[in-house]
Amino acid sequence: MNSPIGVFDSGIGGLTVVKHLASHLRDESIVYFGDTARVPYGSKSEETVKRFAFENTKFLLKHGVKLVVVACNTASAVALDDLQRSFDVPVVGMIEPGARAAVRLTRRRSVGVIGTLATIESSSYERAIHAEDASVKTTSRPCPLFVPLAEEGWVSHPVSEAVAREYLDEFKTANIDVLVLGCTHYPVLRNIIQRAIGEHVRLVDSGEEAVKEVTGILKREGLEAAGGGEVYRHFYVSDIPRKFREIGERFLGRPIDGLTLVPQSDVPWYERAEERRC
Amino acid sequence: MNSPIGVFDSGIGGLTVVKHLASHLRDESIVYFGDTARVPYGSKSEETVKRFAFENTKFLLKHGVKLVVVACNTASAVALDDLQRSFDVPVVGMIEPGARAAVRLTRRRSVGVIGTLATIESSSYERAIHAEDASVKTTSRPCPLFVPLAEEGWVSHPVSEAVAREYLDEFKTANIDVLVLGCTHYPVLRNIIQRAIGEHVRLVDSGEEAVKEVTGILKREGLEAAGGGEVYRHFYVSDIPRKFREIGERFLGRPIDGLTLVPQSDVPWYERAEERRC
Repeated sequence: MNSPIGVFDSGIGGLTVVKHLASHLRDESIVYFGDTARVPYGSKSEETVKRFAFENTKFLLKHGVKLVVVACNTASAVALDDLQRSFDVPVVGMIEPGARAAVRLTRRRSVGVIGTLATIESSSYERAIHAEDASVKTTSRPCPLFVPLAEEGWVSHPVSEAVAREYLDEFKTANIDVLVLGCTHYPVLRNIIQRAIGEHVRLVDSGEEAVKEVTGILKREGLEAAGGGEVYRHFYVSDIPRKFREIGERFLGRPIDGLTLVPQSDVPWYERAEERRC
Repeated sequence: MNSPIGVFDSGIGGLTVVKHLASHLRDESIVYFGDTARVPYGSKSEETVKRFAFENTKFLLKHGVKLVVVACNTASAVALDDLQRSFDVPVVGMIEPGARAAVRLTRRRSVGVIGTLATIESSSYERAIHAEDASVKTTSRPCPLFVPLAEEGWVSHPVSEAVAREYLDEFKTANIDVLVLGCTHYPVLRNIIQRAIGEHVRLVDSGEEAVKEVTGILKREGLEAAGGGEVYRHFYVSDIPRKFREIGERFLGRPIDGLTLVPQSDVPWYERAEERRC
């Protein structure tokens, strides 16, 4: 089935997921929507994030996607169940894949989880981990400064090292051997996080695990693209933020081609015909 | 004239301006709109920030305000001229008042300006300072991490000290004696900024200067409230973010009463009758 895979995120963090999709599923086309006009979601209320998630999903469905990846841990944490109930296509989030990998990898039965305030307060990772194995101990904490540090590009800066030490210190006493990167921005700070937490702790990139789940679903449901067809990657954003290309290309690991601006307007924005390429 | 003064900001930073308004103009009622669903503006495009500024102004006018304060440096920098041309009430921004105070205070004729990426890239402060006195030298730089640090509440944290030193270091060679806090969040970090820049540098809080300008306009145009009438402060927000009350009350310096949620919707949100108190 040659329809594209749809991916949405609050902004550009989800490009780290697109990077994995593109390298694992070379025959699949991708339509990405980054809600850069309303980013970030992580500090906002559950109700607002849910509303944004529904609008973004409808936008992707208008582009004929066969499966939706919620490449935003916050939106996955608060909206995934509702999205799965409300739409006919498979909807894949970040939480369950990350939780399953963590349970599979931990030897000490003690897992740490970091994410935005909204993701951590939702306790979604804890629930998903305990649904897999109730005996696994979980410790979690929000790391709100990691997103602006990643976007500032301070990926090996002493300030980021200090913030990482401050945030991750409490995991030391919890005796974890796996830490879930529960925010799609965090893989950009992977090296600093690894140094602060110690080399004995395995980092789980939920986005990478979600891509494995997408691969399984496509196979199981006969949705895989036939090889040899045209493969495209289209990127839609609701704003072209300052430093967008610089940051976006760092996240995606390659130049962003085929970028379209879809301004959210006071009329139902996802129904608007007018889209402006840039 | 007993109509309220309208104030809008991208989120809660503008509460530092409301704090000054409330203490200088005790007889004036205030209607505040914080666009917490779409905050922050500082990293977003000029076009998007302009659109948001128009929507917010229309919302305040629907509430019968006699004057609009754009309590957001980013929105002031990119949208003030257009707002002033498009609406009949006086519209007061942050830039000119801050620039005027800086020119008045500098002895060395060398002024520093810090703000969001959008404010600094707009060069609005430089233009306003040079319009006052072309001989004053300006040095400016964006400090994008100050907003999340203020919201994280790290107002006397070693990490914030390190970030302030890193950001403000280049002002040392510029020989400034005045630094404009060109973002309404920054007064919350005032102590750290003062220590990093040195005690010989005067800090200008643009919000406080803007309140002096509002006082002058009300007097000049005969818009002052008659004393002895009912005075109210209404706060509207487009989202109730996590930690909202904790952060908001720190910014405002007192509890937030009379808070109303106005969700931005896919129908013209500022026309919606349905508002939900919370």
